[in-house]
Amino acid sequence: MNHRMVINMTGVIMRLEAVLMIPALIVSLIYKEGTWQYFLITMVCAFAIGQTLSLVSRPKDQRIYARDGFVIVALAWLVLSLVGAVPFFISGEIPSYVDAFFETVSGFTTTGSSILTNVTALTKGMLFWRSFTHWIGGMGIIVLIMAILPTSSGRSMHIMRAEVPGPIVGKLVPKVRDTAKILYLLYVGLTAVEVVFLVFGDMDLYEALVHSFGTAGTGGFGITPGSVGDYGAYSQWVITVFMLMFGVNFNLYYFIVLRRIRTIFKNEELRTYLAVVGISVSVIGFNVYKIYGAFSETLRHSAFQVASIVTTTGYATTDFNLWPQLSKTVLFILMFMGGCAGSTAGGLKVSRVMLLFKMVKNNVKKMLHPRSVTSVRLEGKPIDEATQREVSSYFAMYILIIAVIFAVISFEPAPFNFETNLSAVIACFNNIGPGFDLVGPASSFAAYSGFSKIVLSIAMLLGRLEIYPLLLALTPRTWMKKSS
Amino acid sequence: MNHRMVINMTGVIMRLEAVLMIPALIVSLIYKEGTWQYFLITMVCAFAIGQTLSLVSRPKDQRIYARDGFVIVALAWLVLSLVGAVPFFISGEIPSYVDAFFETVSGFTTTGSSILTNVTALTKGMLFWRSFTHWIGGMGIIVLIMAILPTSSGRSMHIMRAEVPGPIVGKLVPKVRDTAKILYLLYVGLTAVEVVFLVFGDMDLYEALVHSFGTAGTGGFGITPGSVGDYGAYSQWVITVFMLMFGVNFNLYYFIVLRRIRTIFKNEELRTYLAVVGISVSVIGFNVYKIYGAFSETLRHSAFQVASIVTTTGYATTDFNLWPQLSKTVLFILMFMGGCAGSTAGGLKVSRVMLLFKMVKNNVKKMLHPRSVTSVRLEGKPIDEATQREVSSYFAMYILIIAVIFAVISFEPAPFNFETNLSAVIACFNNIGPGFDLVGPASSFAAYSGFSKIVLSIAMLLGRLEIYPLLLALTPRTWMKKSS
Repeated sequence: MNHRMVINMTGVIMRLEAVLMIPALIVSLIYKEGTWQYFLITMVCAFAIGQTLSLVSRPKDQRIYARDGFVIVALAWLVLSLVGAVPFFISGEIPSYVDAFFETVSGFTTTGSSILTNVTALTKGMLFWRSFTHWIGGMGIIVLIMAILPTSSGRSMHIMRAEVPGPIVGKLVPKVRDTAKILYLLYVGLTAVEVVFLVFGDMDLYEALVHSFGTAGTGGFGITPGSVGDYGAYSQWVITVFMLMFGVNFNLYYFIVLRRIRTIFKNEELRTYLAVVGISVSVIGFNVYKIYGAFSETLRHSAFQVASIVTTTGYATTDFNLWPQLSKTVLFILMFMGGCAGSTAGGLKVSRVMLLFKMVKNNVKKMLHPRSVTSVRLEGKPIDEATQREVSSYFAMYILIIAVIFAVISFEPAPFNFETNLSAVIACFNNIGPGFDLVGPASSFAAYSGFSKIVLSIAMLLGRLEIYPLLLALTPRTWMKKSS
Repeated sequence: MNHRMVINMTGVIMRLEAVLMIPALIVSLIYKEGTWQYFLITMVCAFAIGQTLSLVSRPKDQRIYARDGFVIVALAWLVLSLVGAVPFFISGEIPSYVDAFFETVSGFTTTGSSILTNVTALTKGMLFWRSFTHWIGGMGIIVLIMAILPTSSGRSMHIMRAEVPGPIVGKLVPKVRDTAKILYLLYVGLTAVEVVFLVFGDMDLYEALVHSFGTAGTGGFGITPGSVGDYGAYSQWVITVFMLMFGVNFNLYYFIVLRRIRTIFKNEELRTYLAVVGISVSVIGFNVYKIYGAFSETLRHSAFQVASIVTTTGYATTDFNLWPQLSKTVLFILMFMGGCAGSTAGGLKVSRVMLLFKMVKNNVKKMLHPRSVTSVRLEGKPIDEATQREVSSYFAMYILIIAVIFAVISFEPAPFNFETNLSAVIACFNNIGPGFDLVGPASSFAAYSGFSKIVLSIAMLLGRLEIYPLLLALTPRTWMKKSS
C-alpha cells in the first residue's frame, strides 16, 4: 500500500476541516456566543497536526491503487468525525466524547440520529456546525478535495468511486476533477435556492441555512424539539420538495444545464423513484386520514414523511411512530430502498433495487426457458455480469451486516426491544436518523450504552461509504506493503 | 405446457392422499372416535375425483419440461392442502375452512404454525392426521410418488429438483427413482428409531408417533398446550437430538450406510451447521442462565430451542418469547438460516448462507486485487457462475418476498404490531411455526383475519417449495401451450 499517500491525504483532510469550521466560528461570533473559542482551538490544532502529517509524508509515488483509494476514504471519514466531535466535547455542550463522536458521525454520514435529549440547550454556533457536517458529508469530502485542490492528477476515479454512492459511477465530463467541480456547483446552487425559498416563509436566515444543510445532505438534524413540525405548512412543503430533489441523481441536474431535458424524462431510475413515492404517499394517506381529518394536512404529513424516509433525510413533522402498523411498514421498507444513485441519499439506492428485481426476473425466465439468451438492462444499456455479481454480492453483504449489528446491539438490556433495536440498526445503517419505538422521531439514541453508540457509529459509516472502504480498511491484509 | 401430464399427476396426488389418510382412520377406529367417518368420506371423494382426473387425461407425451415440473409440484402441494383440510372442516373440529386450510398447509409445509387456541379439544384421529401431514411434507409428496410408482421413467429430475430443498440437488445413485427410494427408506428408518427412543420415556405409542412425525418433518405441531414442555427432560433431549439429525443432509446418512464415514466428517455444511448450533446454544445459555438457575435446565432449554428453530421445527419447551432480547435476536437470525440442504428443514439452508458468505468474500478480494483469479468453492468443489447467480438471485427474491408479505400482513389493525407481523412472516415463510410477541410459542395465529391467513399460507408454500414452483405457477405465461 502507498502509506505515504494515505498519511498525506489524512493531513489534507485535517487542514480542510479546520477551514470548514470557519462558518460555524463566524456564526458564534455573530450571536456573541463564547463557543467561538472552542472552534478556534480545534481549528488551530487540526491545522497544525494536518500540516505536520502532510510535511512528513510527501509521497514519492503519486499512484493510487484501488485499495489505497478505499483506505484513504475510510480514514478520511474517521478522522473527519474524530476531529469534528472536538468542539462539542471541549465546550461541554456534549459532555461525553463518545456521544459527541456519535453525533458527528451521524452528521457527516448524513444520518441525523441524535443523542441530544434537549436540542435547544446547544448554542447556535454548535448547532450550525452540527448541521454543516450534513452538508459536507452529503456530497462528500473527497469529492470536495478533488474539486478544489490542484494536485488531483494522480488521484483518479478510485477514490471518487469509493465515496459516490450507487452501483455504477459515471463521469459527467472526461476529467474527474471537472466532474467533482460540476457536482459541487450544482450542490451549492440547489442549496442556495432552498435557502431563498425558506427565508420567504417563517424561517430567519439562520434557520433557513441550517435546514437547507440538513435537506441538501439528506441528513435531518433539527434545531427545535418538534423537528420541522415546529414550522408552518409552507416550510414543510418546501422541504418536502427539496428533500425529493436531493434524492435524485445529480447527473440529471447537469442534463438540465445542458438542456437535454428528454434524457431526464426517459430516466428509468427517476421514474421508478417517483412512482414509489407516489404509491407510498397514497397508501399512507389513506391509512392515516382518520388521524388528521383534513385532506391537506393528511397529504402534507404523508408526503413529508415519505420524502424524508425515502431520501433517508429523517426530518419529521409528526410522530410517525404512533401511526398504524401499515404506514410504519411502508416507511420501514422505504428505509431499505433509499434515494437514487449519485444523490446525497443513503439506503440501497433505487437503481440497485431495480437491478435486483430485474436480475430475479431474468433468472426466473431462465428457469422457464433454460436455453433462452436474455440480458439485464438498465437505462436501456445491458448490465455486464461483473456489475450484476457486484450488486448481488453487495446486497448479500448489506443484509449480513444488518444481521450482525442487530445481534451486537441486542446485548442492550430491557427496555430495548426487538422493534427499537432492529429499527435503530436499519435507521443508522441506511443513514436515515429516527427509527421506531424507543428511537422514534419523538425520542433519541441517548439511552444506548457507549458500546452500542460506537457500534451504531460504525453502522453509519459503513452505510455512507457503501460498506467496502470501511470493511477493507478493517482488514489487516489491506495494510500490507505489497501491491498487486 | 404438457397440460395432460399436469392434470394426470394431480389425479395421482389425490388418490395417493386418500391412501395416506388410512393411518388416521385406523387411529380414529382404535380410539373409538366418530371422526373415522369424516376421513372415509374424504378418502372416497378424493379417490373418485383423482381416478376421474387421471382417466380423462392419459398423457400421450410422457416428457416433462422444466416448467411442467414446477407447475406439477406447485399444484400438487395446493391440492394436497385443499383436500387434506376437508376432514378438519366437515367434522366441525375446525369450523372455518380457511382455518382448516391454514392448518393443513402449515402441516404439509412442516411449518407448525397453528390457529388452534385449544389443541386438546381435537380428537386423537384428527391430531394424528395433522401431525402425519408433517411427515408426508417433510420428505415430499413427489419424492414419495417417484419412490413407489412404477411409471416414473419420463418424470425426471425436473420435478424432484423442484421439491428437494437446497442450492444444488445431487442424485445418490444414477436412477432418480432409486434415489427417491433410498431417501424414503432412510426417512422411515430414522423416524422409527425416534419412536422407539420416545416410548422408552414418558410417552405412549400414540404420543411417540405424533411427536416423531413432527420431528422428522421438522414440523412442530404439538398435542398438548405446553408443546414438548409438557414431557420430561428425557423426551426433550431425545427430540433435541433427533431435530438436529433431521436438519442434516440425508445424503450423509446414505454415506453411513455405505461406510464412507470420513466423507461425513469432512462435510463443510455439517461442520458449519454444528458450529452455529454450538455457538448459539452457548450465547443463549449465558443469557438465560439467570432465568433457570440450574445448569442442566439452562442447557436443556437453550439446546432444545436452538435445535427447534435452526431446524425450523418449532416445538418449544419454554416460552422463548419471554427471553431477553439477545436470545430472541439469536433465534431470529437462526430462523433465516434454517437447516442443511437436502434435509427436511426450511429456511435459506446452511449451504446457501455459506455460499453467500464465500461470494461476498470473493468479491471483496476482487476489489482489492482486481486482476486476481479466484473461485468460490464448497465441499472442495468450485461453484460455477450459474449456480452463484442462482444463489444470489434466490437470496434477493427471498428478501423481496419477505418485504412484500410483511407489507400485506400489515393491513391487520392493532394489536398486531411490528414484532408480531414481521416474526409471523419470517416464521411462516421459513416453515418454523411460532414467532414472537402475539404469535409466540404460547399463543396462536387464530386472531389473524382470513385474508392474512391465506397470505401466510402462500408464504408457507413459497418457503417449502423454495419460491420458484409457486411463483412460476402464478405466472400466466407459464400456462401457455408452447414449450421451449
